[in-house]
Amino acid sequence: MIVLFTDFGLEGPYIGQLEAVLQQQAPGIPVINLFSDLPPFDIQGAAYLLPAYAAGFPPGTVFLCVVDPGVGSDRKGAVLQADGHWYVGPDAGLFSLVTRRARSVEAWWLPEVAGAAPSFHGRDVFAPAAALLARNSRLPGGCASCTPDPRVDWPDDLARVLYIDRFGNAITGLRTAVVPETATLTVQGHALQRAQTFSDVSEGAAFWYANSNGLVEVAVNRGRADVVLNIRAGTPVEL
Amino acid sequence: MIVLFTDFGLEGPYIGQLEAVLQQQAPGIPVINLFSDLPPFDIQGAAYLLPAYAAGFPPGTVFLCVVDPGVGSDRKGAVLQADGHWYVGPDAGLFSLVTRRARSVEAWWLPEVAGAAPSFHGRDVFAPAAALLARNSRLPGGCASCTPDPRVDWPDDLARVLYIDRFGNAITGLRTAVVPETATLTVQGHALQRAQTFSDVSEGAAFWYANSNGLVEVAVNRGRADVVLNIRAGTPVEL
Amino acid sequence: MIVLFTDFGLEGPYIGQLEAVLQQQAPGIPVINLFSDLPPFDIQGAAYLLPAYAAGFPPGTVFLCVVDPGVGSDRKGAVLQADGHWYVGPDAGLFSLVTRRARSVEAWWLPEVAGAAPSFHGRDVFAPAAALLARNSRLPGGCASCTPDPRVDWPDDLARVLYIDRFGNAITGLRTAVVPETATLTVQGHALQRAQTFSDVSEGAAFWYANSNGLVEVAVNRGRADVVLNIRAGTPVEL
Repeated sequence: MIVLFTDFGLEGPYIGQLEAVLQQQAPGIPVINLFSDLPPFDIQGAAYLLPAYAAGFPPGTVFLCVVDPGVGSDRKGAVLQADGHWYVGPDAGLFSLVTRRARSVEAWWLPEVAGAAPSFHGRDVFAPAAALLARNSRLPGGCASCTPDPRVDWPDDLARVLYIDRFGNAITGLRTAVVPETATLTVQGHALQRAQTFSDVSEGAAFWYANSNGLVEVAVNRGRADVVLNIRAGTPVEL
Repeated sequence: MIVLFTDFGLEGPYIGQLEAVLQQQAPGIPVINLFSDLPPFDIQGAAYLLPAYAAGFPPGTVFLCVVDPGVGSDRKGAVLQADGHWYVGPDAGLFSLVTRRARSVEAWWLPEVAGAAPSFHGRDVFAPAAALLARNSRLPGGCASCTPDPRVDWPDDLARVLYIDRFGNAITGLRTAVVPETATLTVQGHALQRAQTFSDVSEGAAFWYANSNGLVEVAVNRGRADVVLNIRAGTPVEL
Repeated sequence: MIVLFTDFGLEGPYIGQLEAVLQQQAPGIPVINLFSDLPPFDIQGAAYLLPAYAAGFPPGTVFLCVVDPGVGSDRKGAVLQADGHWYVGPDAGLFSLVTRRARSVEAWWLPEVAGAAPSFHGRDVFAPAAALLARNSRLPGGCASCTPDPRVDWPDDLARVLYIDRFGNAITGLRTAVVPETATLTVQGHALQRAQTFSDVSEGAAFWYANSNGLVEVAVNRGRADVVLNIRAGTPVEL
């Protein structure tokens, strides 16, 4: 299975162009579009979402990850094998949390691809590599063992909003496993308590909860947390 | 074939997560994303769209339907077999119009699923059930015969706007089969006549017509009915 | 492979309904959703995007193209075979640039389809024709050789913005092959120079570049060109 994890947007031709490459170079292998609207250029936010949302996919899944403001610069492309999953994409911190949390990791730089469009390595470099990995777990020729940027300056959990979903819920970079159930979460001056789920609080009430991928999420029952609490991707939260 | 009918949004990971479950538990079975942007939490509107847009799908199609503001509460999950189609999702009225209009219906409560995320039964309860049905028409173990909420208080046709499409056209809950061709439709004080299609009226003119799924739809030729007539999902219409 | 190229929007049921027809009438043939948010009703803009974005698809690819403000009128439906690709859709100029630039073209009018919904020929006329072509390169019965509208009044390159992508980049109708690398592009009073790619200019700087499909594109490094330069689909550009 190939899983797309990008900031390309569902709009426009980019996801379709990725899928066309994958269809031709890895025919018959299912492609799942997991995230295509990651906040544009926010490598750090994506880096904390990736391990949470990659968990649970079967061994051998190839994650094609592109949040790439530096496309065409000298930033490197990378392939990682971490706990049985493959990851392909630009190395600029995107894989730093996957790496930090994995029990075992191997990594390689991708060689440059002659003729690749300088503005679309997703289509011309990363998708062909993902297709090859998905087809027969083979690295592209010319890969060289590497250590991706570990971003040691980034914390283990990120105390800010990473993503606002369609309902106005705010996904943070805090893992619920490291947050006590009784913790108060403060966001934009509002002190929030934990609830099990939406229907456990009254209509219009704000709360935090353990979302279905193990991250702390801020929500309002039958309302929009982003509007009610005035939050957006990037807003800090505090325990 | 499995058909998704949800308010999850194309944004974010939710549709991808559903598709990942279906791909693993019903490999090779096509998944069609019919509606993923139903108005959030509007169970009633979705209930009137469902029979109109389910018509025409082949026998055995499994509709995975999730508009579920009560997720995690004690509302039940249901499976229905109606006129050769399967329906899976939360029971809170969503299936009431399918049931009312079907020639034959059988229904079952779904058992609870241990370990299901309280906020994402779509992924953890309904998608696995849909996969099982699509694969071999088998109910999950532990299903108990039931009568889903019939919502007898809801009318046979719903005189309001259910959905605004990309072009600004407004789909209503009125079936054209029960509306005379000569009827005047009043919406926000505008009296509209029926036309066959867009090109039958002058540019900028508003009208109603029988849409391609048998519902009364309000439109403006080469314009946006939602803007011109100031309508949105929920706006009442009158015959 | 069947490629969708439409202004239907990802929102709502229309793309899903196309895919359901294709799945039933051409089972197992991959469907790629290339563009589903072309600017509504902008046949001319779509006509210049089509040859740029169709390039590179394998021989035999079927492009199902619908930008169709005249649906239900007496405009004809057409099938084209151009340089090894098939194209199906309404003839009102949409195929004029594909035709003009192809080395070889054959074209046919599609017969009318009894019972087709007057507002959704995409589903009832064009998708079934595309399925037939994709399955065994067979024209629907009753096709008659034709010459699609050549739009001789349209220039070889179109000096305006055709599409704004998710990042705010503006795709124009100018092929980079006919624009000198040293050319200055003027848009909304701003004189822009060419760069190789984003990272070649300073943050916040506007420039033009050869996009990954051979069109002149206006962009801002780590910013939104549409906002910074006040441009949208339709804005003229000047060399």
